[in-house]
Amino acid sequence: MHYASRLYRMADNGLGAWEIHHIATEKRNRGDDVILLTVGNTDFTSPKTSIAAVRQDLAAGRTHYSPSAGGRPFREAIARRHTRKTGQAINADQVIVTIGAQNALLTAALCLIEPGDQVLVPEPMYTTYPGTVAAAGGEIISIRSPPGNRFHPLINEMEAAITPRTRAIFLATPNNPTGAVYTTDELLAIAGLCRNQNLWLVSDEVYGELIYEGQHVSPSMLPGMAERTITISSLSKSHAMAGWRLGWMIGPQELVRHAGNVALCSTYGVPTFLQDAGVAALEQFPNGLPELRAAYRRRRDQLCEWMETVPLVSFHRPEGGMFIMLDARATGLSAYDFAKGLVLQEGVAILPADSFGESAAGHLRISLGATDAEMEEAAMRLSRYAKQIAR
Amino acid sequence: MHYASRLYRMADNGLGAWEIHHIATEKRNRGDDVILLTVGNTDFTSPKTSIAAVRQDLAAGRTHYSPSAGGRPFREAIARRHTRKTGQAINADQVIVTIGAQNALLTAALCLIEPGDQVLVPEPMYTTYPGTVAAAGGEIISIRSPPGNRFHPLINEMEAAITPRTRAIFLATPNNPTGAVYTTDELLAIAGLCRNQNLWLVSDEVYGELIYEGQHVSPSMLPGMAERTITISSLSKSHAMAGWRLGWMIGPQELVRHAGNVALCSTYGVPTFLQDAGVAALEQFPNGLPELRAAYRRRRDQLCEWMETVPLVSFHRPEGGMFIMLDARATGLSAYDFAKGLVLQEGVAILPADSFGESAAGHLRISLGATDAEMEEAAMRLSRYAKQIAR
Repeated sequence: MHYASRLYRMADNGLGAWEIHHIATEKRNRGDDVILLTVGNTDFTSPKTSIAAVRQDLAAGRTHYSPSAGGRPFREAIARRHTRKTGQAINADQVIVTIGAQNALLTAALCLIEPGDQVLVPEPMYTTYPGTVAAAGGEIISIRSPPGNRFHPLINEMEAAITPRTRAIFLATPNNPTGAVYTTDELLAIAGLCRNQNLWLVSDEVYGELIYEGQHVSPSMLPGMAERTITISSLSKSHAMAGWRLGWMIGPQELVRHAGNVALCSTYGVPTFLQDAGVAALEQFPNGLPELRAAYRRRRDQLCEWMETVPLVSFHRPEGGMFIMLDARATGLSAYDFAKGLVLQEGVAILPADSFGESAAGHLRISLGATDAEMEEAAMRLSRYAKQIAR
Repeated sequence: MHYASRLYRMADNGLGAWEIHHIATEKRNRGDDVILLTVGNTDFTSPKTSIAAVRQDLAAGRTHYSPSAGGRPFREAIARRHTRKTGQAINADQVIVTIGAQNALLTAALCLIEPGDQVLVPEPMYTTYPGTVAAAGGEIISIRSPPGNRFHPLINEMEAAITPRTRAIFLATPNNPTGAVYTTDELLAIAGLCRNQNLWLVSDEVYGELIYEGQHVSPSMLPGMAERTITISSLSKSHAMAGWRLGWMIGPQELVRHAGNVALCSTYGVPTFLQDAGVAALEQFPNGLPELRAAYRRRRDQLCEWMETVPLVSFHRPEGGMFIMLDARATGLSAYDFAKGLVLQEGVAILPADSFGESAAGHLRISLGATDAEMEEAAMRLSRYAKQIAR
């Protein structure tokens, strides 16, 4: 049977990297002691207030269709949050609720990108980006963010990559996997490219509440950018609600009207009785869960400290997000081989980061979303593994 | 700012028809007595067993990511259901969980359709179909299903419409809005076209549990069709769970593997703690909610009986689904003008069906999802309105 050709460009969602995760989960299913630091899950639980809201809505029979773009209360809560964070006065008509940030990314791609269009994206980038752009028929042009530049993008290379086919820049700040928090100067330079070349900016800010150095800047608040920026976020990371699939996109009213038409065809709306839970989460924790952020920062600091004495590997201390990048280039092993040995010998699963982009070659992504005790045990095993390689 | 051209082909989701719905909801918000029979909501409540499953999952902290294609238990429950209904032995790898049937339709479109491809769809068709196919760059060629043919498709016209650019046939049985339940002979003829011309068949069976005449046939069970059929369904209609957004698609394993890659980019999975609720619903009510089906049948029969004596309008008695089509052609009014007068004068909102396709011109869609008392009151007002037109 015939399949659409986009599927072959969508198929490579960094699947090689996930093989380590599969080895680990199979090992665990066999009863082995495995510490999983691959995926972006968390040891924190979702807010009790959100769980209570679901129970209340279900008891009240709120199980009928929601408007496809989301109910007003949740859209208004998201608009208020955006105004508070950015100083930009927006209303609920500039917000659409989506099935997590991923659904917002696809919606943005379908709204902006035509077959043959190019999108500039700093790499390393999250592994669904190429597939998402390919779904709309577009192509990603990767912009390097080398370790030597603290994984920040080379903006001169971004400027040089613009062609008449360039339609948009997609970026994530803080970045996944590197945790780079783009500076105001960098974002001003990128904003200048967007304005001068009439490009859209799609800003993925799902890690925006998890900042350890510097400060989070939403590009939509920079001069002349509100009308050409789509701001995407979710409750997944900031509120330990990944499994709820509650995300959103914010943009100019015309864009959001189009996005509403896309939502009709894409999901027909987000589960009705989860949206009040989203309102409750944003009201009680307007800046995300404070204990979660504190824990990630503590684990980041401790992991970096523990690993200082370990041979051959070094850490890139992230400015934000929920991951640490381990640099294993000095081991002489590929990231994949390093990870495979680690999971097989020590039962610690971390993610080869090559599939996030060439700038991450030889690096591995480690999640901070396990308990302090698991992090400490993982550090001990990682240290033992690195010492054995060094012998 | 520039938008992707697909948006202009996605924008017309039969929005004219929904204007009546908006007039009605505004009237209701002003405190007027309005009976809403426009949308496919229901007066029935979701299964208690599903609500209990959500409470239990949330209490147990099942709020982390689900696999994008859905968790095994729900996929297995859906596979068992399909096997029971069709006699086709399938396994969970041939199932992917989606955000309602609508997300499955988009996933199917992205898997099968390229820019420039054509898709044959019997009209009247659900209003999101053109937008969904346009999202993938395709174009729908409508196949007539005239009232004179009991709203069943003219299969000779379907055959004549096939070109080298035809990639798939999409259909819904029972149909929305007409309630036509396609016969085995019709489906065999369509299956023959698919096999001979190497076309995919996308079969939307969300109303498959709501059958009043004839019997529901899933085309995937016809000879040689399993390998070229995508079967789409959901719990929305059969289990009064529209707001839960729990749907699925079933197909050959290779298709489902591709669909899993699309799901990564489209939603990153369905809310984790809703999936056990889906399992519970399918286990307790393997054929949908029996009281719901009985009520819709009773309302269909009563409405048809009440309206027999009413001048100028007549009913098409549906074979399945949750809607009745009212034929208002003899009034000399357009469906829109008929509906607008009815909602303004009598506070009864029903949907002009023209936007579902030319075969439905002069018809209006009436939902059976209101209480018996509301249905009776609506029938009385409709009768008064029709008599006033006839004067």
